[in-house]
Amino acid sequence: MGILIKDVFMPNKKKATIYIEGNEIRSINGEMRKDDFVIDGRDKLILPAFYNTHTHLSMSLFRGIAEDMWLKDWLEKVVWPTERYIDEEYVYWGAILGGLEMIRSGIATVADMYFFMDRVAEALELLGLRGVLGTTVFEFPSPEAKTPEESFKISENLARRYENHELIKPSIAPHSIYSCNVETLQQVKEIADRYGLLVQIHLSETRWEVYEVQKRYGKRPVELLEGIGFLDRNVLVAHAIWLTKAEIRALAKHNVKVSHNPVSNLKLASGGIMPYPEMKEYGVLVTLGTDGVASNNSLDMFEEMKVFAISQKNHRWDPTIAKAREVFKVATENGAKALGFKAGKVEGGYLADLMLINLNSPHLKPLHDPITLAVYSMRAGDVDGLIVNGKPLMLNREILVVDEGKLMEKAERKAFELYEKTMEVVK
Amino acid sequence: MGILIKDVFMPNKKKATIYIEGNEIRSINGEMRKDDFVIDGRDKLILPAFYNTHTHLSMSLFRGIAEDMWLKDWLEKVVWPTERYIDEEYVYWGAILGGLEMIRSGIATVADMYFFMDRVAEALELLGLRGVLGTTVFEFPSPEAKTPEESFKISENLARRYENHELIKPSIAPHSIYSCNVETLQQVKEIADRYGLLVQIHLSETRWEVYEVQKRYGKRPVELLEGIGFLDRNVLVAHAIWLTKAEIRALAKHNVKVSHNPVSNLKLASGGIMPYPEMKEYGVLVTLGTDGVASNNSLDMFEEMKVFAISQKNHRWDPTIAKAREVFKVATENGAKALGFKAGKVEGGYLADLMLINLNSPHLKPLHDPITLAVYSMRAGDVDGLIVNGKPLMLNREILVVDEGKLMEKAERKAFELYEKTMEVVK
Repeated sequence: MGILIKDVFMPNKKKATIYIEGNEIRSINGEMRKDDFVIDGRDKLILPAFYNTHTHLSMSLFRGIAEDMWLKDWLEKVVWPTERYIDEEYVYWGAILGGLEMIRSGIATVADMYFFMDRVAEALELLGLRGVLGTTVFEFPSPEAKTPEESFKISENLARRYENHELIKPSIAPHSIYSCNVETLQQVKEIADRYGLLVQIHLSETRWEVYEVQKRYGKRPVELLEGIGFLDRNVLVAHAIWLTKAEIRALAKHNVKVSHNPVSNLKLASGGIMPYPEMKEYGVLVTLGTDGVASNNSLDMFEEMKVFAISQKNHRWDPTIAKAREVFKVATENGAKALGFKAGKVEGGYLADLMLINLNSPHLKPLHDPITLAVYSMRAGDVDGLIVNGKPLMLNREILVVDEGKLMEKAERKAFELYEKTMEVVK
Repeated sequence: MGILIKDVFMPNKKKATIYIEGNEIRSINGEMRKDDFVIDGRDKLILPAFYNTHTHLSMSLFRGIAEDMWLKDWLEKVVWPTERYIDEEYVYWGAILGGLEMIRSGIATVADMYFFMDRVAEALELLGLRGVLGTTVFEFPSPEAKTPEESFKISENLARRYENHELIKPSIAPHSIYSCNVETLQQVKEIADRYGLLVQIHLSETRWEVYEVQKRYGKRPVELLEGIGFLDRNVLVAHAIWLTKAEIRALAKHNVKVSHNPVSNLKLASGGIMPYPEMKEYGVLVTLGTDGVASNNSLDMFEEMKVFAISQKNHRWDPTIAKAREVFKVATENGAKALGFKAGKVEGGYLADLMLINLNSPHLKPLHDPITLAVYSMRAGDVDGLIVNGKPLMLNREILVVDEGKLMEKAERKAFELYEKTMEVVK
């Protein structure tokens, strides 16, 4: 059985009927078959769903526990004490809460790095969402592993368990250069090569990190990674703010992918603005991510697109930088490409990862160019439906695959429980 | 008859029942009377509605007609050619569209400057919204007035017509220093003093403006205004980005109010970030505005709050600047104060300008601190109800005062009509 979306506005504003078969868009304006499931697309706009290339879904439980603090205080006084209590149950419920928000925000796929990633996978499978999931590797003990070696084993198990899975793609995630030794980074790379895994790593998020790496190794972060043979097309770096032009050229040369997280960077006062024009000039594939809810505090890719566009324009005193069409591509097609999926376009042969937008709202009138409207005027609340891997997860703002109310309530209870445990210690 | 909002979450997270009588909040947790209209507040949060202190509502018709352009091109190639066709009908329908968006976004009140402001007043009255409305004064001909003198007469008529009106407060709006002569500015001030009007003016939005004023007068913009006796507590300046500390001190000394418009400033690549910490230090009353939809492209005060907070933090490398509570006050209480209303708090004796938020959404869980949630996680789509001047305009996402669909359709038709007229000439 296929799915027909009838009379829907396409991203180019033309009306069309879209035919989905299996997990793919089969045709635009093709034939309708008798046994097809029909979705009424009138007054709706269809867009490719978002690919959010950097987040920590389970940290949704941390939403709003501490704000407006210095990064060091925030980590030492709140996040790390809280993470002492993180176990696989919390990870699961955080991923459920984050996954529900993904559905309501039009996000089909996340690249996620955290702990107990098999439980994150379980949550995403339940909800029908796609994830590229990497176990975080630290030099010091994590909630899941006492040593890097333990986290390697966990990563290898994850790689074997989710080989060729429809929705879950295993990955591996060394936290950063400053929290992993060179030997650990090299071992991660070996495992990644052996299993064909995408490597996710935080890179050059703060000036402190750059100085710290230079102090330890006498090299800038990208130079160090290049020197140890870490960089290739299977590496996705998050943040990438404090880079020299030479470092950007090195990223381009090795086909490294970048996840830009403007809202989190601004909120944590990282100080810089990612050198997007140079990345574009040298040919780096730039994608977009929300980062975790603890530093954002939402998973809203519409907001992320707008902040990306306007922060670049203002920083460079040039409103022609980061044009709407380009920004939209970064948030969809580029993200899909970086994570290894043929998605991000409403075209035959692409994955059926699609969202429907309700156009009946005063802030979306008049409808001139749907993409401009998406980048500068839409918000996550306009998402009316989401189809992932050919399966409708939400239609007419109703989540079809789970009992949303029940799951939200349980997740909120777990969040309060975790908060109380932490606060006892923090106070 | 009064209105009771029962069992609603207050901004401090406590549950309460709110009693509204006439246009005021009478009491919190007071007695319920028999003939009262009851609103079920369960699973909802009540917040003071927003005061948007700088916009051009009628420009909602311009949404998305031109993007990612240099300010000069945007004005000369798009906005001004379009405004040649602006008449009072377009102004009315633009204000209707903008007003509907205000209701859906939790905005009770706007400070607006444009042309044919009696038609904007008509639209706001129909919708039940509050407006502080100023006719724009230019040295050159405007769509409404051929000379400054003509616009003075229009302003005086507006002042007389809306004296002591419940929802509409007349104002006067010299466009800027660079588009009005000193004599014109002085005449505006005389009229404002005679009728007790708030003066709205664009100030120091771009570096170009500062250089231009210095070239013409040998003074910086605030120095010039101070020198001609223009500055006092009835002046509201929009943008105020490119200021020296001496200028900020002068604004504070004369009790001038500032409308900060971060999204528009970033989008138009004005280059600077408003010196908020200095304004705060010297005691300037800072408020928040969206600017017109043509340069934003929405009237979303939630987004405006978040961009305000995170752009300040990043610019000053300090995440403790522009804390959530402070930002929320800027968008509500400060705005009300600047426009001369006792509003912006959910407290007895304050105007009943209130919004209800639907908390049943994954991106609003867990509920720790409602104000933090409002600034960093909410969006306009979460607004479930709006009460302005004691009257419910929307409940359960349904607009009660007009036929929204019909008005939206007509407004969109007018927008397309205007666009076609303009494009014939532009091409």
